[in-house]
Amino acid sequence: MELPCQLKNLKIAVIGMGLMGGGLAMALLGKCKHIYGVDKNEEVVTYAKKLGVFSRVSTNLAEIIPLADALILAIPVRAIISLINELDSLHNGSVIVLDLGSTKEEIVRAMDRLPERFDPIGGHPMCGKEKSSLIYADPIFYKNAPFALTPLARTTPAAHSFALEIVHALGAYPVWLDPATHDQWTAATSHLPYLVANALANTTPFETTPLIGPGFRSTARLAVSDIEMIADIFQTNKQNIIQVFNDFLNVSNQIHKYLSMNQMDDLFSFFRNGAEKCQKLIDLEQTGDK
Amino acid sequence: MELPCQLKNLKIAVIGMGLMGGGLAMALLGKCKHIYGVDKNEEVVTYAKKLGVFSRVSTNLAEIIPLADALILAIPVRAIISLINELDSLHNGSVIVLDLGSTKEEIVRAMDRLPERFDPIGGHPMCGKEKSSLIYADPIFYKNAPFALTPLARTTPAAHSFALEIVHALGAYPVWLDPATHDQWTAATSHLPYLVANALANTTPFETTPLIGPGFRSTARLAVSDIEMIADIFQTNKQNIIQVFNDFLNVSNQIHKYLSMNQMDDLFSFFRNGAEKCQKLIDLEQTGDK
Repeated sequence: MELPCQLKNLKIAVIGMGLMGGGLAMALLGKCKHIYGVDKNEEVVTYAKKLGVFSRVSTNLAEIIPLADALILAIPVRAIISLINELDSLHNGSVIVLDLGSTKEEIVRAMDRLPERFDPIGGHPMCGKEKSSLIYADPIFYKNAPFALTPLARTTPAAHSFALEIVHALGAYPVWLDPATHDQWTAATSHLPYLVANALANTTPFETTPLIGPGFRSTARLAVSDIEMIADIFQTNKQNIIQVFNDFLNVSNQIHKYLSMNQMDDLFSFFRNGAEKCQKLIDLEQTGDK
Repeated sequence: MELPCQLKNLKIAVIGMGLMGGGLAMALLGKCKHIYGVDKNEEVVTYAKKLGVFSRVSTNLAEIIPLADALILAIPVRAIISLINELDSLHNGSVIVLDLGSTKEEIVRAMDRLPERFDPIGGHPMCGKEKSSLIYADPIFYKNAPFALTPLARTTPAAHSFALEIVHALGAYPVWLDPATHDQWTAATSHLPYLVANALANTTPFETTPLIGPGFRSTARLAVSDIEMIADIFQTNKQNIIQVFNDFLNVSNQIHKYLSMNQMDDLFSFFRNGAEKCQKLIDLEQTGDK
């Protein structure tokens, strides 16, 4: 027996055709019945029409959302929350709602307030580029990425299975966890790295530019991330970010003390520890639950 | 008339056959008369023999150095200084000495004490990988990299021209500057990024591993750099590093204040500034003096 919610039978609306929504739509091409797209930006919609991926695109939510069996919200966190709060008036049938937002607690709280005919589940693929436009999107963007999934108590088996099918169709792998843990962990693995990259860029004098090499570029890369996305992350995950940033400042002050007191052996032990830890973090991640 | 110091007529000894020395030798293949190689590690020498790049390799400096018209020192900073101090007894003819060390003031000071028959010039290519072994070396490693050159007052036109020929043979481009400026700039563009990457790795809890993505990997990448190389850098450039690290901590404390005082608009202006600065630094670098 074929379940009606199998991906290939579904009409999916992707809200936000940027790097994330665009790449997702490209990867889903041929794997679902229809892919529709919405973006507030007229130029993006014009460009999206030419891609041959979307059956229909529009700048108007009301034109697309009612057509869909499942919605994938690929916009910044606070735009996701606003849209969730409007969904009741935009779709009057049953619909699965999966989001790709960078923080999960506030989104899942908004999802929980949806009328019963909506079947919501939180999601967050751990991939990204510092350039966020559709022109950088590609269908292998999600390949081998951890895809956090944060179901609600009300999430049905159909939405669970839909989310899993999406994750597998993208070549990613699922990491099931609760929204609070997600937000605590991403404060360390994603929001602190952004903060540190931006602080580094803020510190670097222009005059040093002739000696910039791949080390600087790699460490500072995240500093140019889309500020709207970043602002929403910092607004919705502030306490976790402050906590992990305090840990980072303690570590930095320790390094500063070693340097200024000329405790070089202690400094190098500390660096060796950081190197081993970094290697383990990356090794663990590469052999993770795929 | 052909100058005797033209690259194609020279026998060059590369001291240290790691990532830097190995890649350099590969790129010079066919462009000079002979390339010899020395490494203290027996396994590296065995591996280097199989590459078909070196006319002769050894673990013994005394076996190789006397054969060369030019020496390229591709070992950590303090090993370079020790070797410079020994050169008088290792070579009794005229020889050009170019190093690839990460800091320049102490090396150039040691070079300046060499007997007159030595013709020294400082160098530092701004490229690297977090993995430093010969097995990661490749001939296009230096392509489009800024290559800092710090001549001494005593450096002859022959050594200037040799250094330039090497830089061009590698596909890099020269950045001429004095050792003090080099060390001040690299504190910002290279040593601070390492420190920040290592502090980030030291901060990140293991439990967060399932949600590590490309952002963390990019920002923390430098943390696994070879500790011997790093220790030499921090020993020979401590004051400049402390100064730029102070600037970084001031920036970080400013961010912390905005976060903890809930001055979110100020925080996002600050981030926007960091993003613009990062973009400019990278744009300037990409349109730099090539």
